[in-house]
Amino acid sequence: MSDLIVPHGKEERLIPLLLEGEELKAEIEKAKTLKQLKITSREASDLIMMGIGAFTPLTGFMTKADWQGVCDNFMMTDGNFWPIPITVSTDDEEVKEGDEIALVDEETGTTIATMQVSEKYTIDKEYECKAVFTTTDMEHPGVEKVMAQGKYNLAGPVKVISESFYPEEFKGLYQRPAESRKIFDDLGWRRVAALQLRNPMHRSHEFLAKIAVEVMDGVYIHQLVGKLKEGDIPGDTRVKAIGALVDNYFVEGTVVQGGYPMEMRYAGPREALLHATFRQNYGCSHMIIGRDHAGVGDYYGPFDAQKIFNEIPEGALKCENLNIDWTFHCYKCGGMASMRTCPHGKEDRLLLSGTMVRKTLSEGGELPAEFSRPEVVKILQDYYQGLEEKVEIKLHGAATGEVNK
Amino acid sequence: MSDLIVPHGKEERLIPLLLEGEELKAEIEKAKTLKQLKITSREASDLIMMGIGAFTPLTGFMTKADWQGVCDNFMMTDGNFWPIPITVSTDDEEVKEGDEIALVDEETGTTIATMQVSEKYTIDKEYECKAVFTTTDMEHPGVEKVMAQGKYNLAGPVKVISESFYPEEFKGLYQRPAESRKIFDDLGWRRVAALQLRNPMHRSHEFLAKIAVEVMDGVYIHQLVGKLKEGDIPGDTRVKAIGALVDNYFVEGTVVQGGYPMEMRYAGPREALLHATFRQNYGCSHMIIGRDHAGVGDYYGPFDAQKIFNEIPEGALKCENLNIDWTFHCYKCGGMASMRTCPHGKEDRLLLSGTMVRKTLSEGGELPAEFSRPEVVKILQDYYQGLEEKVEIKLHGAATGEVNK
Repeated sequence: MSDLIVPHGKEERLIPLLLEGEELKAEIEKAKTLKQLKITSREASDLIMMGIGAFTPLTGFMTKADWQGVCDNFMMTDGNFWPIPITVSTDDEEVKEGDEIALVDEETGTTIATMQVSEKYTIDKEYECKAVFTTTDMEHPGVEKVMAQGKYNLAGPVKVISESFYPEEFKGLYQRPAESRKIFDDLGWRRVAALQLRNPMHRSHEFLAKIAVEVMDGVYIHQLVGKLKEGDIPGDTRVKAIGALVDNYFVEGTVVQGGYPMEMRYAGPREALLHATFRQNYGCSHMIIGRDHAGVGDYYGPFDAQKIFNEIPEGALKCENLNIDWTFHCYKCGGMASMRTCPHGKEDRLLLSGTMVRKTLSEGGELPAEFSRPEVVKILQDYYQGLEEKVEIKLHGAATGEVNK
Repeated sequence: MSDLIVPHGKEERLIPLLLEGEELKAEIEKAKTLKQLKITSREASDLIMMGIGAFTPLTGFMTKADWQGVCDNFMMTDGNFWPIPITVSTDDEEVKEGDEIALVDEETGTTIATMQVSEKYTIDKEYECKAVFTTTDMEHPGVEKVMAQGKYNLAGPVKVISESFYPEEFKGLYQRPAESRKIFDDLGWRRVAALQLRNPMHRSHEFLAKIAVEVMDGVYIHQLVGKLKEGDIPGDTRVKAIGALVDNYFVEGTVVQGGYPMEMRYAGPREALLHATFRQNYGCSHMIIGRDHAGVGDYYGPFDAQKIFNEIPEGALKCENLNIDWTFHCYKCGGMASMRTCPHGKEDRLLLSGTMVRKTLSEGGELPAEFSRPEVVKILQDYYQGLEEKVEIKLHGAATGEVNK
């Protein structure tokens, strides 16, 4: 029997909605005959999260009552905790309650699932934004996406028939919760901390992970492999960079790497709760919450994402937050430290902004060893070097009049 | 109401046996009239631990049945968990069951308590040694003390009337559990890790404490101020050295210092349990257990003291172990690390034995900054410098024929 934390929800078992075998084959055929509804990449990735059981205990997109409960007090009508509405929307006037439809990723053209429409409803989008993002500012990337949603939300149970490009494109990294649980079980882990990553790991991330390794059975370095923002390091480079760090600076058997397809909402505190919720399904007893977790701009206080874990009903969520303060290298401490453990001044600390890091790397400069491991820097330098070559080719093309072709 | 962990035992409240006010005055007078029984410094310090409530829920020295239960399965007859017999012994043939006696520290002459003798019994000392120390080797300092005990054990409730020299000699450091609890409450702490110390703090101890600071509300640096072994750094120097480290390398409000009068048993795993048991009374939810905790020589495996926490009945002890592996500075990691977080080789690590440290310091040499903070080294150097001067004075005296005076 597994010693791992139970999956989220009252049933305490994984509920994957991905069909298998003959059932899958039949549903794929049937989907072709159904009305095809285009969905966004966020909706597609949410479906895949449901498919693999990462969104257990959800069985489909939320009803209006669930949407309302989640916005108001993190609770679905079945009494299960959930922190952010998981919904699909459309402007299509023809879809009716009772319809069975196929959900097609508008970006890849892949049919991800079929859905039995049990309810078609409108929502107060501003209300959702206020509840989830604490703002209705259209500059907020999460708000922008909600406000751009279709007029109607559709609720109803889904049958997932594809994991899209993820298993292939992120082979060896992309994992279903049942898979990570198996790995943890084989390692004899019980207390597992998840580290959320969507960027290469520098020494502050390494430090977060190592604190967790010291006090837990192991750390799950869990990368977002869903859609990224422009300017982000692409998945393959990031995977290589994280791999180099893990190989050279962690003890074997203390770290497991994995990837999940969800897209960021940038909902700060609420998203931290969502991260913990689906990490519980992946078998993690703890979720590392650092400074400004899942935040964007100045919408959230740096530790709001830690505090919110004290504001939800007791026992609603079994996965606990492992809070860690802002981390950095301190020359006086002679190593990595956090605001909780270093009493020294700014002048003693190495603080680099993300902008400075990108600028240094894109100009071929070196990052100090106190900020990033040389093995990681090398991989990032190679990536930026490649970018530069691409730009040069483009510029060369322009010079010979090949632009606009 | 306090958010701290409840005191140990079914009553979940501190049970201090130290009398106060008029009752104390009267008992002091009465003690003078009673039969005076000499006790060892270990027995005296155990009495003070009972006096201040640190040994809650004990109400006196153990009966034979309790002694047996504790040896056999960590359990007293009242169903409370206890890991090491707390007993007083004598060779006195005259003491009888029913007697009321005064217990006098043979080293200081201070009357520590009065006792109602409810039972006089003999024990199989080898059996106790085997159970507690896992050995009957007389080279083991704990075994030696048990084997040197009197023929009879005396059981019975005690009334403590003195805390001996501790409050005065360790003013500002010596604390009762009610005092540390008040301090933690005032700081708003709930999750508190105790760090057991009986030596100056070098960087590996600092590292242990800082890992705990990262993941807990705070750390209680809890120094043994009971009797030491020869060659140990004396209390005042140690207190100064630890103070210098805390002042210069910890953030205010993350660390509380305290001292307790108990003597070491060097019982390794069993003593780790005892350390956790009385730390729960002091208000600590966690006890840091490092490598070879409370061990001596090669009697225990380096992590036996961590493993034993999994071998006691579930729920018997609320204070949890916070296990941390062997720690050191690693040049390749570029900072402090442990065997759990550093994958590098011995050649990359700075490892100094206690003997090397004492040798370097006593010869006026410098310890590397990666091993010990300069502020700490300075205090230890001053101490050894003072010792040397004393030796010189002695030698000088010898040369002028003043020896043996």
